[in-house]
Amino acid sequence: MARKKLLRKRPHRKIGAPPGTLVHVGEPSQEPITFDLVTYDAEHFSEVTFGIREVNRCCGFDKGRAVSWANINGIHAVGHIETIGACFGLHPLVLEDILNSDHRPKLEDYGDYLFLVMKIPFYDKADGFRVEQLSLILGPSFVLSFQEKSGPLFDGIRERLRSGQVHGRAMGPDYLAYMLIDAVVDRYFTTLESIGDDIEDLEQELFTAPGTKTLEAIHHFKRETIHLRKSVWPLREVIGGLQRGDSKLIGETTRVFLRDVYDHTVQVVDTVETFRDIISGMLDLYLSGISYRTNEVMKVLTITATIFIPLTFLAGIYGMNFEYMPELKWHWGYFGLLGLMLILALGMLVFFRIKRWFGLDHRLVQNRVFR
Amino acid sequence: MARKKLLRKRPHRKIGAPPGTLVHVGEPSQEPITFDLVTYDAEHFSEVTFGIREVNRCCGFDKGRAVSWANINGIHAVGHIETIGACFGLHPLVLEDILNSDHRPKLEDYGDYLFLVMKIPFYDKADGFRVEQLSLILGPSFVLSFQEKSGPLFDGIRERLRSGQVHGRAMGPDYLAYMLIDAVVDRYFTTLESIGDDIEDLEQELFTAPGTKTLEAIHHFKRETIHLRKSVWPLREVIGGLQRGDSKLIGETTRVFLRDVYDHTVQVVDTVETFRDIISGMLDLYLSGISYRTNEVMKVLTITATIFIPLTFLAGIYGMNFEYMPELKWHWGYFGLLGLMLILALGMLVFFRIKRWFGLDHRLVQNRVFR
Amino acid sequence: MARKKLLRKRPHRKIGAPPGTLVHVGEPSQEPITFDLVTYDAEHFSEVTFGIREVNRCCGFDKGRAVSWANINGIHAVGHIETIGACFGLHPLVLEDILNSDHRPKLEDYGDYLFLVMKIPFYDKADGFRVEQLSLILGPSFVLSFQEKSGPLFDGIRERLRSGQVHGRAMGPDYLAYMLIDAVVDRYFTTLESIGDDIEDLEQELFTAPGTKTLEAIHHFKRETIHLRKSVWPLREVIGGLQRGDSKLIGETTRVFLRDVYDHTVQVVDTVETFRDIISGMLDLYLSGISYRTNEVMKVLTITATIFIPLTFLAGIYGMNFEYMPELKWHWGYFGLLGLMLILALGMLVFFRIKRWFGLDHRLVQNRVFR
Amino acid sequence: MARKKLLRKRPHRKIGAPPGTLVHVGEPSQEPITFDLVTYDAEHFSEVTFGIREVNRCCGFDKGRAVSWANINGIHAVGHIETIGACFGLHPLVLEDILNSDHRPKLEDYGDYLFLVMKIPFYDKADGFRVEQLSLILGPSFVLSFQEKSGPLFDGIRERLRSGQVHGRAMGPDYLAYMLIDAVVDRYFTTLESIGDDIEDLEQELFTAPGTKTLEAIHHFKRETIHLRKSVWPLREVIGGLQRGDSKLIGETTRVFLRDVYDHTVQVVDTVETFRDIISGMLDLYLSGISYRTNEVMKVLTITATIFIPLTFLAGIYGMNFEYMPELKWHWGYFGLLGLMLILALGMLVFFRIKRWFGLDHRLVQNRVFR
Amino acid sequence: MARKKLLRKRPHRKIGAPPGTLVHVGEPSQEPITFDLVTYDAEHFSEVTFGIREVNRCCGFDKGRAVSWANINGIHAVGHIETIGACFGLHPLVLEDILNSDHRPKLEDYGDYLFLVMKIPFYDKADGFRVEQLSLILGPSFVLSFQEKSGPLFDGIRERLRSGQVHGRAMGPDYLAYMLIDAVVDRYFTTLESIGDDIEDLEQELFTAPGTKTLEAIHHFKRETIHLRKSVWPLREVIGGLQRGDSKLIGETTRVFLRDVYDHTVQVVDTVETFRDIISGMLDLYLSGISYRTNEVMKVLTITATIFIPLTFLAGIYGMNFEYMPELKWHWGYFGLLGLMLILALGMLVFFRIKRWFGLDHRLVQNRVFR
Repeated sequence: MARKKLLRKRPHRKIGAPPGTLVHVGEPSQEPITFDLVTYDAEHFSEVTFGIREVNRCCGFDKGRAVSWANINGIHAVGHIETIGACFGLHPLVLEDILNSDHRPKLEDYGDYLFLVMKIPFYDKADGFRVEQLSLILGPSFVLSFQEKSGPLFDGIRERLRSGQVHGRAMGPDYLAYMLIDAVVDRYFTTLESIGDDIEDLEQELFTAPGTKTLEAIHHFKRETIHLRKSVWPLREVIGGLQRGDSKLIGETTRVFLRDVYDHTVQVVDTVETFRDIISGMLDLYLSGISYRTNEVMKVLTITATIFIPLTFLAGIYGMNFEYMPELKWHWGYFGLLGLMLILALGMLVFFRIKRWFGLDHRLVQNRVFR
Repeated sequence: MARKKLLRKRPHRKIGAPPGTLVHVGEPSQEPITFDLVTYDAEHFSEVTFGIREVNRCCGFDKGRAVSWANINGIHAVGHIETIGACFGLHPLVLEDILNSDHRPKLEDYGDYLFLVMKIPFYDKADGFRVEQLSLILGPSFVLSFQEKSGPLFDGIRERLRSGQVHGRAMGPDYLAYMLIDAVVDRYFTTLESIGDDIEDLEQELFTAPGTKTLEAIHHFKRETIHLRKSVWPLREVIGGLQRGDSKLIGETTRVFLRDVYDHTVQVVDTVETFRDIISGMLDLYLSGISYRTNEVMKVLTITATIFIPLTFLAGIYGMNFEYMPELKWHWGYFGLLGLMLILALGMLVFFRIKRWFGLDHRLVQNRVFR
Repeated sequence: MARKKLLRKRPHRKIGAPPGTLVHVGEPSQEPITFDLVTYDAEHFSEVTFGIREVNRCCGFDKGRAVSWANINGIHAVGHIETIGACFGLHPLVLEDILNSDHRPKLEDYGDYLFLVMKIPFYDKADGFRVEQLSLILGPSFVLSFQEKSGPLFDGIRERLRSGQVHGRAMGPDYLAYMLIDAVVDRYFTTLESIGDDIEDLEQELFTAPGTKTLEAIHHFKRETIHLRKSVWPLREVIGGLQRGDSKLIGETTRVFLRDVYDHTVQVVDTVETFRDIISGMLDLYLSGISYRTNEVMKVLTITATIFIPLTFLAGIYGMNFEYMPELKWHWGYFGLLGLMLILALGMLVFFRIKRWFGLDHRLVQNRVFR
Repeated sequence: MARKKLLRKRPHRKIGAPPGTLVHVGEPSQEPITFDLVTYDAEHFSEVTFGIREVNRCCGFDKGRAVSWANINGIHAVGHIETIGACFGLHPLVLEDILNSDHRPKLEDYGDYLFLVMKIPFYDKADGFRVEQLSLILGPSFVLSFQEKSGPLFDGIRERLRSGQVHGRAMGPDYLAYMLIDAVVDRYFTTLESIGDDIEDLEQELFTAPGTKTLEAIHHFKRETIHLRKSVWPLREVIGGLQRGDSKLIGETTRVFLRDVYDHTVQVVDTVETFRDIISGMLDLYLSGISYRTNEVMKVLTITATIFIPLTFLAGIYGMNFEYMPELKWHWGYFGLLGLMLILALGMLVFFRIKRWFGLDHRLVQNRVFR
Repeated sequence: MARKKLLRKRPHRKIGAPPGTLVHVGEPSQEPITFDLVTYDAEHFSEVTFGIREVNRCCGFDKGRAVSWANINGIHAVGHIETIGACFGLHPLVLEDILNSDHRPKLEDYGDYLFLVMKIPFYDKADGFRVEQLSLILGPSFVLSFQEKSGPLFDGIRERLRSGQVHGRAMGPDYLAYMLIDAVVDRYFTTLESIGDDIEDLEQELFTAPGTKTLEAIHHFKRETIHLRKSVWPLREVIGGLQRGDSKLIGETTRVFLRDVYDHTVQVVDTVETFRDIISGMLDLYLSGISYRTNEVMKVLTITATIFIPLTFLAGIYGMNFEYMPELKWHWGYFGLLGLMLILALGMLVFFRIKRWFGLDHRLVQNRVFR
């Protein structure tokens, strides 16, 4: 499985640079950056996709329609991000944060616009949990969204706007921002569902066939959960802040919807905490289970050894070569000894059964060893 | 035992749908939906049960008497829920939440009405703990309650209203809502009592006959408790919010009763936390108990082996076939060796007893092995 | 030891009853209910004890003297409690709570009077920790106290009032309430002292002779502590609330004394938390101690086996019956082999001593096994 | 080591006494009580030591100079404490608290004066951690300090006042109180340093020669730390309260110094919490270390047994006395078998080395067993 | 590895000294103290480095340019620090804190200037984590920074100011202070990265070759993390306080930048907490892993012993020397017994495989022992 980074790294070349220096922080990418621009109001809708070189075309689009939404796929072209920043009058620190894909989810109110950082979650069993960053800027008549890569996350929203459903189109950019946030939170639900399924599989394994692999997997999930928490708890804060906040950019109607999406993040957080509890319980279970099985193994060894070691000793006695050993001459000596040994062995079994020491092994005797 | 879901799932077809889309989320059900409508004031009382097809008849009933209470059994008919929503002027998000049976308990104040989500708990040993959702809407002269299935939970309340007891009938819909909430909270008490009994049984088993089954059961109860907490803590918040809140829909008289039911939820939370503490202690106990018993088993093995292995070695010595072994010729060599062995064995037993190493096993010697 | 209830039960017959229904919840009792009525001011003092049948006589006593104190022993007579409630104008929910002996400590301000629920603690080693409920009502000129059973708890207070000590008599009912609360809190100190002594005994046992009994006792005390916390934490809240609260029923002078008793409850809570820490540490100690001893036992076994098993093998070699085994003919073969065995055994002991593996057992070697 | 009391005891004779009854609570002492009285202002300084019988002489001293400081060594003479209380107009509850040496650190504002309880820490390895109580009263022109025993704690302050350093003498009683508090907090630093050294020694022992003594010592330090916390956390609250509080008895200049001493208590609390973390980690380490060593021991046993038990079995085979055992006649049978045994033994060693099971013991093989 | 101090020591000679006494607390140093003085405004820039003897020259520089920054390398010359304190009118407690290198990060507002204490982190694998103290004073037109040793930490900032970048020079001393703080926080990122790498190495070792060294390393990192937390949490408070605070010394523009650096400290804290979680999980993993391997070892021993001990017993039987043992005469007795033994051994292997007890070892059988 892919190794998680413990750390959100700020690259070395960045350290020591003056604040506000625009540097892309994240995996370098060769993918061409594209951006699509959607403008609409209740009656109209237009949609264009540009290559990043035409970035300055997005500046002119700001006016006209009620809502403009520019979605930028790819954040590794510093210069073009700077151009967009200039168009919309963004603070240099905002641009710096957009470029840094290792940011914690946060909400900042710059007066004229709100700046949100969120994490889009991805999970598959092989690669584990990872996130991509989504930066949102909500202005009075525009929404900017910056994703690390292009993906189908917002296709549904685009489709809905295109089809002219009442709810989407008649409302302002705050409602658009809400829809984007809702799409991200929905993604957490599906992600958590996948993780939950894998945890249940692991739990199954824990009871049926635990081994070192299980231990590694528990550890792996523990780290996944630590990662999840790091993106989920601040997300809750962010959306909670958005809903309670007093920015005039968010209308009363939208606020009700944000309360709803806030409820969803609370559920997400709840689920992540449940995962945490369950995984931490699994480690205890593993240890207890191993100890129990060691105990079982020890009992088998102890019963075998305690029965046969004295018998072997007896056989050893009569294997000695002393000249004067009267028992050896007895005609029934051999069979008598065999009988004695049998009685001893049975006696010990009975002894083990009767004593409370053995009462604890009741099931062992019945189900495991002598069955 | 039935496997608990870690996750409150939002179904896949829902993800990506626009907010406010009405979709039933939960187990599909074929049970016919019914609803009963009760209207009353201090002097009058009427009660009718309809099939869901006659849902529009509930709209007309809103006026007239002081209090109208519509109780809908079954939430899987999206269209009819929509009709009811339209009658009473409910927000689309409220309808969405009513239809989604995986919701966290919550309280929302929509000004004209209050919207509450609660969980009705069910428990039996075979199936474990599960919940059904109850959505309550408290309006100025009506109460709507939506249950996932019909059940006898509110029969007592209906009976009390019917019988014309002063307290119930003379008061407004807020008092009716209080009675419904109180019925749910009472249900938690009986549920917790059943779980508590099963935990005590498990505890008994832990001390008398622990095994892998016990371990699984502890794990099982741990998960039950995680589930319980998830429905109980928000319930406390909900009722606390209701009692402290400043909605004009709740009168001063009813507020005193809500404070009482709030006290009850605090007790419920207390009990659930107690369960949690006890169950987490049980896992430690299990591990300690296993370790102790492993230690006991090891001692038996060690005592047996430490006594007999050297003796067997001695017997082996005189079983050798060297030509010149003078002891073998001695007349009393054999019996002398037997005597020596006896002395060695006794010496070791005494040694074990005297040494502090053995002092720790005091009880083992007395009660377990040599008794 | 008596089994603790995990749960404060609301009895089944109560569930489903309308709120405010007066039902006694608790152990049924045949003890006759009595109540004593004390009235006093700085100059006068009178004291009467009635059977519960004369309950209506307490109503008339309310006026006249500065302070009237009715102490009711026994809460299982619903009707009479109702009579008292009517006399003093108590809310039905207050009466319900007085009758329910499974209540959490709480403080409620009903404007005209304050209602307090506290727990009187009892502890002895055989029965463990249990509580009885004390309900206090502090009115403008009266104090009502409801105990589950008659007991000597308040005898000292009565004596002090009788003897006309200045502090007690000249002050209002708030000071009387303070004295009652102080008596309850003092009882916690003596109770905690007894529990503390028993915990120290257990700790002693843990180091000298740990066994399964010790484990059960640790578990037992853990549950006692859970119980203690459940009555002690809310008690602190209650008294804290009383002291900080702004009820006009409590004078400034008494408030200073309440601050003092609040300090005492903080000490009680502190001590209970200390118990918790110590008991939870004991379980870890137990496990570590057992593991250590298992390690010691294993070492004895390993040393014995590692020395004698190879030797026995050697003896076995020369016990074989091959026709051509030249060593068997050697005259000094036997003694030579014995010498070899001795050298081997000593060599192994030296080896164990020299190696670091053995260095860890330094003390074992010196004090335990070879001493 | 001296056993710590789990509990701050209120003596039995006190329980049931009316509040404000003056009783000395603590170890009885025969030491004569003395008190010294220091009065000074910027220009003057006088210092007298009295026996406690002359206690009434301290009353007249209150006026005249800017600051009077009476330091009483010994609190076991109830009557004299009462006399002092009368002189300075102290509340009976203050006197009660001064006499009770088992008090929690606290700060109480009685308007005319502030009342502080602090703990002076003592530690040596043999007796462990213990505290003595210091009660401070800060009035408008006087400071009273009550210690359980006389000691050199305040000698430095007295010296500084005597020598007429500007800072000390020119300022009011609030600055004197600050200096006393600072002396106590400084004492915590030296105490913590001693404890820290002993913890490091223990840690060393944990890695080099762990045994049951180590376990007891860890437990001991755990309890010390619980004790430390109980006096340190409230101390922080007390000084924090003093610094933030709005008592007019504390001037602005002194408040800055109190902020500094508050910082120091925060460091003390930090250090105590660090101790706690480290000690709780040590128990885990101990357990892990023991388990590791058990594993090592088991491996030695298993390797020995797994190699020699089959070989011994082979030797046993050819020690049998069957008449027809053709191998016994073979001329090279004996040496052939020896060769076979050698091959088997080497094979097993190689097998253990090659298999991953053994790879885990790499170091065992290299460093411990076969070195 | 270098041993961490548990304690920030106040040296003994300091204890008992009057408050405000200037004493250097920290490692004594022979390094010459230097200080460099930078003054600049948007147009001008000058930079001088002095030896500490010329310390009084820094007093005159305060006026003139917009911003003066004096950076003092070395705090072990009490007298010169005092001179600087006099020049800039610093409170004696500030000087005391600057000299004491064992201080907790803190922020104090003295009205005319802000006083900050921060820790500069250092880490390498050999020496572990350690910190040096940085004291910052932000006045209306000057910034003073006191470092324990000279180092390259602020070289980048000096370079930026020198090169006349707009952002740095045109702004006031608050922006300079921000740049210094940012440099320190950036250092935490690189430090955490190094620690994170070493933790990952350790984690690798935990799964591949755990031993006592691993245990010591886990313990080591646990202590490092405790140290880290102690400098990181208060740092967050300090910067949070700075950003939220209402000091007029910090302009609105700089506050936005401080919010950004505050975000970074939150990330630092997050990462440290992640380390803590992971390290505490590693100890559990270690214990579980050891237990698992002990179980594996025990199984090998038990299987070997359980198969061969009964066989050896059988061989022992026919090694006895009884005169009348009819089986010994049977021609095929020997081979018959061999056959019987083979059947027994195979039977036991099959038995182990079939039984569920063995099912748990499935992998052991396949991969480890019989592979």
